[in-house]
Amino acid sequence: MAEPLFKRLTLIGIGLIGSSVARIARERGDIAGEIVVNARSQKTLDRVVELGFADRVEIDPGRAVEGADCVMLCAPVGAYAAIAEAIAPHLMPGAIITDVGSTKQSVIRDVGPLVPEGVHFVPAHPVAGTEYSGPDAGFTTLFQGRWTLLTPPPGTDAAAVAAIETLWQRCGSMVECMEPAHHDRVMAIVSHMPHLIAFTICGTAVDLAGETNADVLQFAASGFRDFTRIAASDPVMWRDIFLNNREALLEMLARFTEDAQAMARAVRWGDGAYIEDKIERGRAIRKSLIDLKQA
Amino acid sequence: MAEPLFKRLTLIGIGLIGSSVARIARERGDIAGEIVVNARSQKTLDRVVELGFADRVEIDPGRAVEGADCVMLCAPVGAYAAIAEAIAPHLMPGAIITDVGSTKQSVIRDVGPLVPEGVHFVPAHPVAGTEYSGPDAGFTTLFQGRWTLLTPPPGTDAAAVAAIETLWQRCGSMVECMEPAHHDRVMAIVSHMPHLIAFTICGTAVDLAGETNADVLQFAASGFRDFTRIAASDPVMWRDIFLNNREALLEMLARFTEDAQAMARAVRWGDGAYIEDKIERGRAIRKSLIDLKQA
Repeated sequence: MAEPLFKRLTLIGIGLIGSSVARIARERGDIAGEIVVNARSQKTLDRVVELGFADRVEIDPGRAVEGADCVMLCAPVGAYAAIAEAIAPHLMPGAIITDVGSTKQSVIRDVGPLVPEGVHFVPAHPVAGTEYSGPDAGFTTLFQGRWTLLTPPPGTDAAAVAAIETLWQRCGSMVECMEPAHHDRVMAIVSHMPHLIAFTICGTAVDLAGETNADVLQFAASGFRDFTRIAASDPVMWRDIFLNNREALLEMLARFTEDAQAMARAVRWGDGAYIEDKIERGRAIRKSLIDLKQA
Repeated sequence: MAEPLFKRLTLIGIGLIGSSVARIARERGDIAGEIVVNARSQKTLDRVVELGFADRVEIDPGRAVEGADCVMLCAPVGAYAAIAEAIAPHLMPGAIITDVGSTKQSVIRDVGPLVPEGVHFVPAHPVAGTEYSGPDAGFTTLFQGRWTLLTPPPGTDAAAVAAIETLWQRCGSMVECMEPAHHDRVMAIVSHMPHLIAFTICGTAVDLAGETNADVLQFAASGFRDFTRIAASDPVMWRDIFLNNREALLEMLARFTEDAQAMARAVRWGDGAYIEDKIERGRAIRKSLIDLKQA
């Protein structure tokens, strides 16, 4: 077996992504010699001990990162600033701090200034997930065939970037570097706006009065059901994503709203050709996805 | 084996729903003694012959319904008026005409006045589907555990309603009667609006310029992918649904747009509590669906 990539990997937060990384690292053996897990609650850490994918659990984030050559932030992005403040004095010189957050400009804004001299900062985003959360939700095949996007600030140590790239490759992921602002725009349209819309449509349905509401649940067979699956995702994680990718999300939502209003106008005025053309475009993008094996 | 429910069942249109009904009727034997299929194109009928689930195919709709004691319209709802006009003079006294359309007020409006004296009209809607279409797309388990909604106009012959109820039960479906206007409102929120939104978001993504568009396809892992699946549905069928459930669809879309704008405002002004509360509601409705075994 290859030498482990890191001597000690500390995971700050242990939800779907963090616990998947821990499970993979535990199973493979070539990612980390030791896996340390930190979480905010003792209850979560007790569950991690039961699940058996950590070598050590630690309730204090400062102590959790001591001696770690890789620290991965796996908490909601809104908690990053406070976490960075708590761990910064305890980071080992030469250590790499990385993360898995879905917004990258905010992470660079919140964490970057707190990274001590001699510590390498490699922001990352594995584009993978399910609607489940918590340490029980992780599984070892989550990242297979998926992309992980790295957004290292200019001047980041090349060896540190290469190490994080190797980590994600060993997790089964394909890796690509990207400008943080570009990352945030792309994610706004492929992930953040679809989630905002799914959450919203579920709320709209719940708000319908009495009898209709019950029927909404009973007859949710097609269409709506898929939205509720997306909408079942973790509220705090998504709240933080929305608040930390505000500009790109609002731009994409404005574009979408214009397009939805144009569809509404076509429905109102009976413009069948317009409607059919728009639906055909949806089919085309689906076909492209299938060709790219991302469907 | 039980006596077949109908001597001759004629299906007008043979897409996902029609070809599923034909496959079930062929497999069970207790739904129809003879299955006649009509479609607009000889190419489709040739394919039906190859697939082997029809006893007879017939390009002329009038001839197709001759001698049938049950005629089921399985075409896009926008074609119903022309079909009804073509078949009305050929319907057998005592026959039942039924359908599978997703809008019910429009079907009663378009078909009702053309139904001859002595022929029974039982509008129906099996709430089931996939994103695939055409005679190859059907399968025998499509309706299992799903609802079929009947919207018979006042005074419809009770035996005719009971026969259509039995037909759908033999297809594996649960059956319920509903007011047509109520049906159209419920479907607007659970099915028609989610589809309109999925079509729209795919168009919005396609319209993004150059590089972003390619990245949209490459990184469509979560959220967006589910929308493209919904958006891959048949364009003509959905165009007709939107145009024939205009009022309810526009009302639901207006409600949704208000709610989406409220979310946008919360994102802009950093109102995390509002966002989190709305997301929690989405989770609640998902949980209700799982409890109802509709998820």
